[in-house]
Amino acid sequence: MSVYTASTTAPVNIATLKYWGKRDKTLNLPTNSSISVTLAQEDLRTLTSAATSSTFKKDNLWLNGVEEGIKGERTIACLKDLRKLRKALEDADSSLPKFSEWGVHIVSENNFPTAAGLASSAAGFAALVVAIAKLYELPQLMSEISKIARKGSGSACRSLFGGYVAWEMGEAADGEDSKAVEVAPLDHWSSMKAAILVVSDDKKDTPSTTGMQTTVATSDLFQYRIKEVVPRRFEEMKKSIVERDFETFGDLTMKDSNSFHAVCLDSSPPIFYLNDTSKKIIKLVHKLNEQEGKIIAAYTFDAGPNAVIYYEEQNENKVLGLIHKYFQKVSGWEKVANKVSTFEDSSIEFDTEAYKGVSRIILTKIGPGPQETSESLVNEQGLPKY
Amino acid sequence: MSVYTASTTAPVNIATLKYWGKRDKTLNLPTNSSISVTLAQEDLRTLTSAATSSTFKKDNLWLNGVEEGIKGERTIACLKDLRKLRKALEDADSSLPKFSEWGVHIVSENNFPTAAGLASSAAGFAALVVAIAKLYELPQLMSEISKIARKGSGSACRSLFGGYVAWEMGEAADGEDSKAVEVAPLDHWSSMKAAILVVSDDKKDTPSTTGMQTTVATSDLFQYRIKEVVPRRFEEMKKSIVERDFETFGDLTMKDSNSFHAVCLDSSPPIFYLNDTSKKIIKLVHKLNEQEGKIIAAYTFDAGPNAVIYYEEQNENKVLGLIHKYFQKVSGWEKVANKVSTFEDSSIEFDTEAYKGVSRIILTKIGPGPQETSESLVNEQGLPKY
Repeated sequence: MSVYTASTTAPVNIATLKYWGKRDKTLNLPTNSSISVTLAQEDLRTLTSAATSSTFKKDNLWLNGVEEGIKGERTIACLKDLRKLRKALEDADSSLPKFSEWGVHIVSENNFPTAAGLASSAAGFAALVVAIAKLYELPQLMSEISKIARKGSGSACRSLFGGYVAWEMGEAADGEDSKAVEVAPLDHWSSMKAAILVVSDDKKDTPSTTGMQTTVATSDLFQYRIKEVVPRRFEEMKKSIVERDFETFGDLTMKDSNSFHAVCLDSSPPIFYLNDTSKKIIKLVHKLNEQEGKIIAAYTFDAGPNAVIYYEEQNENKVLGLIHKYFQKVSGWEKVANKVSTFEDSSIEFDTEAYKGVSRIILTKIGPGPQETSESLVNEQGLPKY
Repeated sequence: MSVYTASTTAPVNIATLKYWGKRDKTLNLPTNSSISVTLAQEDLRTLTSAATSSTFKKDNLWLNGVEEGIKGERTIACLKDLRKLRKALEDADSSLPKFSEWGVHIVSENNFPTAAGLASSAAGFAALVVAIAKLYELPQLMSEISKIARKGSGSACRSLFGGYVAWEMGEAADGEDSKAVEVAPLDHWSSMKAAILVVSDDKKDTPSTTGMQTTVATSDLFQYRIKEVVPRRFEEMKKSIVERDFETFGDLTMKDSNSFHAVCLDSSPPIFYLNDTSKKIIKLVHKLNEQEGKIIAAYTFDAGPNAVIYYEEQNENKVLGLIHKYFQKVSGWEKVANKVSTFEDSSIEFDTEAYKGVSRIILTKIGPGPQETSESLVNEQGLPKY
């Protein structure tokens, strides 16, 4: 028997213009366009191998070492779309093996703990869709494939590109124009770095899908956000990226994070993702920018209390100097141990106990899209190697 | 020499439709109309005595036992308006003593700690203005006098009435139509009670005047709130009061509190008044209403972390039963010691440590407007009695 395999990595992306609200739940069509920065994969990535063989009677999925099977409707929807594209190839060229009729095995691993709440579903669905697209040798462009990833998890579509990525909301009812596009490649503005403060939280956050539905159904302010605020901000943020204008980019990023959390709070019942530690970090970043007289660091918060702080490499000594001063006791600084001596000491006053609310720091930067890899998680039988 | 005196008490009011944003800073003209419930004065009130005499060369003010003098522009503006009205009386009747030309002594005391962050400025300015209006024997109606109190502190105008009060924003540039009016008197719906959880906070909140200016200048969502959300809610809330419809009243009250805090969060830099304890209380109230299948309790938060929970007397055993279960260790329960045995036990699960974030509970209810009092804080010389 022949077992065909393909493997890929896919990155995490962190939105700077937030996706919040679905106009179609099944197709994951959003109520507004969004923008994200793709993060480097040495720190945060999913590695996925896909395998198929005429002997595989059914689909199966192993996630982080556990056989999960194909249960979710969203995964099923992705597989269906991918098979349809493969089928079209097979129909056009009868010499191709009939992958579309065989079962597929998917083995996937993250290089970071899922528990950290770091948008692992985006990287996960991106890797799944890209691995199978490669296995199937699909000729479609990434933007086309991104529509399939979108059905898995909305923000996953943005993980199909590196650098600066927009998810255009589209207008069509079938979602054919709701896809990811590149705003600017990694090389265009490669000095973008990110410090992620993983904030400890004792409560279980409202899942984002549930939260979005509550907001769409109940928040008055939300309607204004999607109709007036985001469309303008979308154009302004793209421009700031094209012009490598960190002040504008950072200002819009912080404002949009706050606007998103504001409409969560305006929901009924209200949804809270920021906790007291998150708020302290927000204030710290504003203090830094105020002291500098310009925006050199910009926070953003997804549907959880973790802070992602974007900054440019040339300001690393200032930004990390301040963060290190107050959060040096958390783990994750090993990576920059040789740079700590060059960090600028900060005179900014801050809560010296705030680090207790943070479990670790992840120091990372902008990165590329899904990558080919020789590493495979499946053996010759098309089963997980472990 | 003759010393003329007058004394009054004035209540605290807690908005259920929030005042947030000034269209004129000097005149305290708001960007939206608001609604409040006036609270009973045995728990929270300011007592103010005003005295005048031909021998008083200048104005003076004693607050909670400390000689403050007349420093604030806002106090000066109130005195100027009151003197103008008195002057008109004197001009029309030359037999009247010339109070408008004499100094006035104002002695004022709260029966609650200012530090608790309980809108003491509203009660304070209301009492000051009413005491002098009485001293001057002004014939104007309370709505007219409320325009003077408004110049002292916006929300003070609402403390000139008992029961349910609206502050109509008005349109005139000079503020002549921006005044308090009665929505319904205390007797109309006298079963309204309030439990105030005074939440401890280590940080200094952004003063409301500063916060409002930041929001007006920077929040995109704010414009929608004042133009679309509040005008509709204002009519709906007045109707719910007229109809004694607690479900609607409570729903709107909670939504408007959240909407107000949402536009604070949407400001740049963002303003946070709710802390983790506030959020826990919000969730607890939603859990109670969910369990009951209807809204029997409604929270609202001003520019600070304290929770004011409105409920109707007939639900006291349920509402206080739940609050007592989780907050019985804080002070303030003495008042209902004889009722605790009738409180319903609640099966709602909640953070058993949350009480640590609360310093005390104030159990109060709806109350009347400023009251005549025989108690005077000034002696025969027109000086503080202490």
